[in-house]
Amino acid sequence: MAVIVQKYGGTSVGSPERIGAVADRVAATVRKGDRVAVVVSAMGHSTDELVTLANKVARVPNRREMDALLATGEQVSIALVAMALQERGVQAQSMTGWQAGIYTEPVHGAARIEAIDTTRLLALLEADIVPVIAGFQGIHEGEITTLGRGGSDTTAVAVAAALQAQQCEIYTDVEGVYTADPRIVPKARKLSMISYEEMLELATLGSQVLHPRAVETAKQHGVQLVVRSSFTQTEGTVIRDMETMEGMRIVTGVATEKEVARIAVLGIPTMKQHLSEMFTALAKEQVNVDVIVQSVVKTGEVDVSFTVSEADVERAIQICEQLQPLLGYREVLQELGLSKVSIVGAGMITNPGVAAQMFAALEAAQADVKMVSTSEIKVSCIIPKSHLHAAVNQVHQAFEL
Amino acid sequence: MAVIVQKYGGTSVGSPERIGAVADRVAATVRKGDRVAVVVSAMGHSTDELVTLANKVARVPNRREMDALLATGEQVSIALVAMALQERGVQAQSMTGWQAGIYTEPVHGAARIEAIDTTRLLALLEADIVPVIAGFQGIHEGEITTLGRGGSDTTAVAVAAALQAQQCEIYTDVEGVYTADPRIVPKARKLSMISYEEMLELATLGSQVLHPRAVETAKQHGVQLVVRSSFTQTEGTVIRDMETMEGMRIVTGVATEKEVARIAVLGIPTMKQHLSEMFTALAKEQVNVDVIVQSVVKTGEVDVSFTVSEADVERAIQICEQLQPLLGYREVLQELGLSKVSIVGAGMITNPGVAAQMFAALEAAQADVKMVSTSEIKVSCIIPKSHLHAAVNQVHQAFEL
Repeated sequence: MAVIVQKYGGTSVGSPERIGAVADRVAATVRKGDRVAVVVSAMGHSTDELVTLANKVARVPNRREMDALLATGEQVSIALVAMALQERGVQAQSMTGWQAGIYTEPVHGAARIEAIDTTRLLALLEADIVPVIAGFQGIHEGEITTLGRGGSDTTAVAVAAALQAQQCEIYTDVEGVYTADPRIVPKARKLSMISYEEMLELATLGSQVLHPRAVETAKQHGVQLVVRSSFTQTEGTVIRDMETMEGMRIVTGVATEKEVARIAVLGIPTMKQHLSEMFTALAKEQVNVDVIVQSVVKTGEVDVSFTVSEADVERAIQICEQLQPLLGYREVLQELGLSKVSIVGAGMITNPGVAAQMFAALEAAQADVKMVSTSEIKVSCIIPKSHLHAAVNQVHQAFEL
Repeated sequence: MAVIVQKYGGTSVGSPERIGAVADRVAATVRKGDRVAVVVSAMGHSTDELVTLANKVARVPNRREMDALLATGEQVSIALVAMALQERGVQAQSMTGWQAGIYTEPVHGAARIEAIDTTRLLALLEADIVPVIAGFQGIHEGEITTLGRGGSDTTAVAVAAALQAQQCEIYTDVEGVYTADPRIVPKARKLSMISYEEMLELATLGSQVLHPRAVETAKQHGVQLVVRSSFTQTEGTVIRDMETMEGMRIVTGVATEKEVARIAVLGIPTMKQHLSEMFTALAKEQVNVDVIVQSVVKTGEVDVSFTVSEADVERAIQICEQLQPLLGYREVLQELGLSKVSIVGAGMITNPGVAAQMFAALEAAQADVKMVSTSEIKVSCIIPKSHLHAAVNQVHQAFEL
């Protein structure tokens, strides 16, 4: 008998009615004869509400206590989902992180899962009882830990790997992975299948469907993922190993990130280059740097540009200014109102000319390309936000997605 | 160095501001040089909100899941109180029931504490870290349990007993134990000291200050209790062993219960008496019977009257009617709109005539006495609700409280 892991996100369990719908879906899978383990997130905005409470009692809430606080969000969901399943005649038991045997490293707020002791979970599945597992949380030596961003997806994948599940279904509020953001490109098409690598690039590039951590974990353990909607019966997108398959698409999809800022550090004397120190300082202050471009403009001098989220611009500028004596640069500039558009596809590796085709499309959309960054299966361009809409549609059309 | 246990109820931690005030109070005690262990309830109405959620997803929520759900209420409070303490420079750590080593019997919704493993709590106290312990909850073989009504008070007393604390301070929204309900008797006086036995009778009789379970546990382990307000600096009421003290008050206080209903089962043939079966049936259906009076009206027949809460009347009548064939009674009657007024005092044991004095006071208030029940240190009378106010004031005055 196959084990299937189903993960339901915050929107999917956002109200008692939604929890009822989730229970209906789990019950249907159980009646089909599969053994199901369920992983759930906290209800809707409950995590945000808990964070607000914490910020009211302390300026910088202690991280250990933050974990104890936030872990209650999923504990509420698992209890309610288990009750709703029992109401439908399906045997179920809620499992907190520590009850489910999810052991993490000793880090608060962003712990990685180290091991899953499946003893209790297997005993429940053997007895045809659906374990309803709290996502996002674990335990280390009697201390409650949380996994940070993408935590619930990661819990689901890790549980699926530990239980050697047939597949891990991620239920969310979209119907799957699209060739582009359907809100920008009306012709965007849902993909029926995509490789881990492509999904990783898409996930990192701002398709909010699935957290890259979860995709990485799935790739590592060979867990087949399915992304689908908890609101409809539509088939979703399967994410799996596709190396063995013929005829890979050159470009699988177009990803976008709306709000991007560019910082340019101009005129760094080449003998003074301390770039690693600059980016280490930025990382230490939690400034997430995305695209980095370095160019030699004239002998003995380099310019470095990088992108950050708009919220981080001020902090990034401050850090650069503090490092001026060390780097000896001439000036630092900032540019707001930018977007990122990227194409992703495993077939790019063997198909030269893809970048050129993309530049042509952007030119046709009159989108000024500010920065370019490429990987083996991805080309990203920074363009003015005002041209994003036209650019994405043009690119989508150019690659016949 | 003395250990003091401080317990804060739901109103005391009802908002971020109130949590700040609680942290100020704990911090002040710590700065005085005492070691403090804190026990807290769920915030304000959060437990009610969780119950409402549960009732929306299942008609009869599973009790195991109800415990998992409700336990989140206190977990939120302990995390927030610990954060607020750290904000004030006081080292603190939140402890859920399972982290604090509170082991209960394997019952959901109304478990009794079986043992407390103080290893973690003592280690924290030794290191001058304030443990902030979740009231109301415990663990049994990896399962979350809750203690039911009066649970948080009971946790505090049990923790105080296990830590051999100097005293257990129960912070609430009243300033202590009064000679009568101050809302009914304006002249009611706060008691500075009261014995366990008197407090037990007062607690059982509807003074909502402290749950009888907690008083019983305190009596059993000789834990000195203090009931006081978390909103003011006023000294509270000390509850302790007073057997050794001279000059016990004859009457310590007047307790009231506003809504009481009387059920009379009339004309039960004496040869058919199956009273135990009647009260067993009532108990099985969770009908809480309070005062029971049995009287012989004529040879070969008895009448039995008992009181229940108004909410239980219908169910009680139904149960009695089902038992008619067995009991063979003539008729069953109900009377609503009644109240109970009681006097409590350890000195009654050695002072005859107290009941007579009470009847005289009720007569002066023109309150018709429907039923009487007495224990060694208590006299309770059922009277019409319309006369409660006058009666309580008259009794209060008669015993010069």
